[in-house]
Amino acid sequence: MMSERQIASEFQATALSPSRRWARHGHRGGVLWLTGLSGSGKSTLAVALEQELFSQGAQVFVLDGDNLRHGLNGDLGFSLADRRENVRRVAEVAHAFAETGMIVISAFISPLHADRDNARKMIGAGFHEVYLDADLSVCEKRDPKGLYRKARAGFIEDFTGISSPYEKPQTPELTLHTGIDQIEMCVAELLAYADTIFALSETKPE
Amino acid sequence: MMSERQIASEFQATALSPSRRWARHGHRGGVLWLTGLSGSGKSTLAVALEQELFSQGAQVFVLDGDNLRHGLNGDLGFSLADRRENVRRVAEVAHAFAETGMIVISAFISPLHADRDNARKMIGAGFHEVYLDADLSVCEKRDPKGLYRKARAGFIEDFTGISSPYEKPQTPELTLHTGIDQIEMCVAELLAYADTIFALSETKPE
Repeated sequence: MMSERQIASEFQATALSPSRRWARHGHRGGVLWLTGLSGSGKSTLAVALEQELFSQGAQVFVLDGDNLRHGLNGDLGFSLADRRENVRRVAEVAHAFAETGMIVISAFISPLHADRDNARKMIGAGFHEVYLDADLSVCEKRDPKGLYRKARAGFIEDFTGISSPYEKPQTPELTLHTGIDQIEMCVAELLAYADTIFALSETKPE
Repeated sequence: MMSERQIASEFQATALSPSRRWARHGHRGGVLWLTGLSGSGKSTLAVALEQELFSQGAQVFVLDGDNLRHGLNGDLGFSLADRRENVRRVAEVAHAFAETGMIVISAFISPLHADRDNARKMIGAGFHEVYLDADLSVCEKRDPKGLYRKARAGFIEDFTGISSPYEKPQTPELTLHTGIDQIEMCVAELLAYADTIFALSETKPE
């Protein structure tokens, strides 16, 4: 029996090419995929960068636990399987946003190499892995939300770095040393990187 | 034991209010939720409206089976339960896009009142249900993709209108008679409606 799945590809797609949207926005779309331990500064950096890019006139949006965990991924828990499905859906949504020419800043721990690699394959050239390299000891010492303390005390299951693995990126496009450098410096580094990768190519004069 | 779910609400959210994004775009964000039978003209209308609104300078995006069925919802089939989950995820993604100030045009059959109502609750004031009212007989006669013929022949399971229910909207914000009126007329009606609902309120002079 034929399934409707096979039929879906016949649906009419958007007639607007990414390049038309890029021209409108004045920049390319794509995804800055922030990955790192809890407490490594993902949300802080994401929000700071969003502000900066928006002030520059960019179309930019942060995808984080706050806007997805309660909604799209509200049916998922924190087991490794559910975390993987969480990351898969985040990647799909990030991809959809990037296709509208937006700059997406995703801020998720995304602990597994395989999942980040799937996101890379899905999103293609617009995917940029940014590793927030901060030692567990630093993150745990910061512990801004008291989560490590709770995890160590056994009140939180499957906590990345404590009772659930974090696989460091092997070849990220950018590494920020958020455990050592000041936040302002990291934001400046990330901004300089974003300005480069999302810039439209020069159009040749006639 | 405390779950990370309870913790998620403490995450840092975007610092950019919708109104700042609206001001940038020159229009409000929101969702035009097109609903109707297969063949009622959802994708055609969505793409035509997207072109028109983009030409006017709007930030606009079509969410349809083509950009979600293969990705985000690629794990779902076409059973009624999977269709409901499909609609739930579409609503969540539409909501996320609308929060960036975009005009989202969603083009899904979305056959059940309860699911559309959930989307309405989730998206709030930015949700606009647009019913593409075309009789089954008209849609089946058009049958642009030959799907009704295949469904009648038993080659497609759970086909809306044939072997799966479609519940007509009771109080949609807009009804377009796509079974009778010319497509150009329907696009014009939808465009006029969109221009009204997504317009920024006049700001009072100082």
